[in-house]
Amino acid sequence: MLGRLLNTHQQWLCRQLADLGYVVSRQTAIPDEGPEIEAALQESLARADLIITTGGLGPTSDDRTRDLLAGLLGVELVENAEVLRRITEFFASRKRPMPESTKVQALVPRDALVLMNAHGTAPGLVIEVSAATFRDAGTLLVMLPGPPRELRPMFTEQVVPFLKQRLPCASEFVCRTLKTTGLGESRVEEIIGPKLKHLSDSGLELGYCARVGEVDVRFVARGCGAAQNVAEAEAIVRDAIGEHVFGVDEEQLESAIVHLLTERKQMLALAESCTGGYIANRITNVPGASAVLWGGVVSYANEAKTGLLGVKPATLAEHGAVSEETAREMAEGALRIAAADYAISVTGVAGPDGGTQDKPVGTVFIGLADASGARVYKFLNRFDRETFKYVTSQQALEILRRALLRK
Amino acid sequence: MLGRLLNTHQQWLCRQLADLGYVVSRQTAIPDEGPEIEAALQESLARADLIITTGGLGPTSDDRTRDLLAGLLGVELVENAEVLRRITEFFASRKRPMPESTKVQALVPRDALVLMNAHGTAPGLVIEVSAATFRDAGTLLVMLPGPPRELRPMFTEQVVPFLKQRLPCASEFVCRTLKTTGLGESRVEEIIGPKLKHLSDSGLELGYCARVGEVDVRFVARGCGAAQNVAEAEAIVRDAIGEHVFGVDEEQLESAIVHLLTERKQMLALAESCTGGYIANRITNVPGASAVLWGGVVSYANEAKTGLLGVKPATLAEHGAVSEETAREMAEGALRIAAADYAISVTGVAGPDGGTQDKPVGTVFIGLADASGARVYKFLNRFDRETFKYVTSQQALEILRRALLRK
Repeated sequence: MLGRLLNTHQQWLCRQLADLGYVVSRQTAIPDEGPEIEAALQESLARADLIITTGGLGPTSDDRTRDLLAGLLGVELVENAEVLRRITEFFASRKRPMPESTKVQALVPRDALVLMNAHGTAPGLVIEVSAATFRDAGTLLVMLPGPPRELRPMFTEQVVPFLKQRLPCASEFVCRTLKTTGLGESRVEEIIGPKLKHLSDSGLELGYCARVGEVDVRFVARGCGAAQNVAEAEAIVRDAIGEHVFGVDEEQLESAIVHLLTERKQMLALAESCTGGYIANRITNVPGASAVLWGGVVSYANEAKTGLLGVKPATLAEHGAVSEETAREMAEGALRIAAADYAISVTGVAGPDGGTQDKPVGTVFIGLADASGARVYKFLNRFDRETFKYVTSQQALEILRRALLRK
Repeated sequence: MLGRLLNTHQQWLCRQLADLGYVVSRQTAIPDEGPEIEAALQESLARADLIITTGGLGPTSDDRTRDLLAGLLGVELVENAEVLRRITEFFASRKRPMPESTKVQALVPRDALVLMNAHGTAPGLVIEVSAATFRDAGTLLVMLPGPPRELRPMFTEQVVPFLKQRLPCASEFVCRTLKTTGLGESRVEEIIGPKLKHLSDSGLELGYCARVGEVDVRFVARGCGAAQNVAEAEAIVRDAIGEHVFGVDEEQLESAIVHLLTERKQMLALAESCTGGYIANRITNVPGASAVLWGGVVSYANEAKTGLLGVKPATLAEHGAVSEETAREMAEGALRIAAADYAISVTGVAGPDGGTQDKPVGTVFIGLADASGARVYKFLNRFDRETFKYVTSQQALEILRRALLRK
């Protein structure tokens, strides 16, 4: 609540729950304060069939959820021998002394189902709050430890099988996102909205999300025929604005690139200046990248451009490091030194300093070289430093994707 | 609510509000559904002095917050000529046709304060909900557009000055996070908890957050003497576990590295295999990196290791690409080709494939070369691919930081 941490649990858990067919109707975050935790638990218990809490189960003094919940439900906390044994073993196997405070994690509400933690010390807890205590239907309360490395496997391996049994979800759920580039949000809806009207009238949910240089179109359908409706919607959108669709769901441009290069058995080399290794990093995030990425050069200093890539000192002197000519020689140099089919080069002014009248902050040249020669594209990306790198890498990858599709 | 998007607004807004001295007591996220939006607005109006909403003000059919709020408060929506003029201009200056639907954004609740949007089309809105409508004290409702590029400047430039006037916050607020590595969460509290007892007894809030290979210790103090109490707490922790503290607040290892190198007027070169440019990317995220980063090589293919870094083919043949010897020659090679004072090399098995009995997935060798020679460190980082890259980059940067501090 102080804005020092990014909450990634909400997204991750929502994603898992949505894919299982559950409808998440609210996410709540609260500070580590007794009254706030109690209020949120009480309100949720009055509202939901299923509550999932994260965090507050650990050994330190700010971990209060277990105690407060036991108080709220009026149940006793009892020491669980198996949990205590595992905590003791956790420290022994790491040859670390076991702090006394850590034993508090072995205290669990009587009658709770205890979820053992394979990656940490705090166990998860499942508690059935019976009907009429807070609401007529009763509530299933699942409490998970906070660290993502502990929470995620515990959810996948233990909570999901339990939920499928205990709270089965009949409804089919299909969600699909088409990622587009080159059109604004209103324009996208203006084109595709009317064509999709018969589907949205019959229950297909349509969502739009405008991002930097990108608009996501999302379809959600539930129940009988969901998959078919989503497939029909996708076909309509592709028919209308297909050249703008660059990916599906979580697909990133880098995965598309790795797949296209793998199919074609082709290799890529990179020569990055202002993106500083970001494009290489994105591509190497994709499993299997080693089959298609020869490697790259992060040529930050001019000496790296001349020494490693063979950019001519005269080119740098005459046109500057940020220029069409330098971008061209960087791409050609990368293609020459590498056993690669394509080379991408990037040189620009990321900012916040370094801009000139001629080449303001945000100026960037992207080169693409292959056996047929080199082409250079110019952009003006006026963003903060990290957004600049992201937008520039999107442009470079999209240039490569379109080149690959043309072959 | 489908887990397809990560909510970064909550963190960003909480951070701004905390630093202004406000106590954020709840964050709520809800789906784009009328009843859910209404319920959340109503509950918040009954609870808070200040409510900030994000999103739902745009032109598409899933943008419903403005209409629902007007209905809830019983106020009329009227067209704002200035907003309409700006929207028209927004499209004209981009030479794009203006979709009819976009005009809905010029409708604002009568008597609302309208916040012009310098980076998009939907204006922000500030509405004073008078006392006794929902609660005795009345509520200030600030509605902001969803895209971060629009929301953030609008908040900083327009909402903050307004809040300082309208809802002044007298309380001093100080928050400080010490980032530690090398000790578990319980152990950290066991050591420093007793030493800080007199401060926590007198109101200093202490928080712990366990991350991958890292424990954050956070102090929060409010009111008179807050800064002094936090400074005293920091001194106590540094005295007790100072060698484990590698950073403060949002400081990342890469900023520490860029600062240390800048102070010393020294240059760094990189030779990355399995981290695939991630270390270069982290360093080039820091403004001013160009003064200290010569550049780097992403030597994914063996030919990149031999061709660009001068790793001996015999070394690769005898010991393999993932070996102490290769890491050493990569670091030495990078130092040799670059006009740099330090070179870091990384070679390992990121996975999910490529592991062997001898060198399982997660095996990584990190080399550090300087004028005095090269040292190689071995780690086993068993994580998913992206976490592997993060943890490995942390280790490499920490090795460099300690080397820089020793000089």
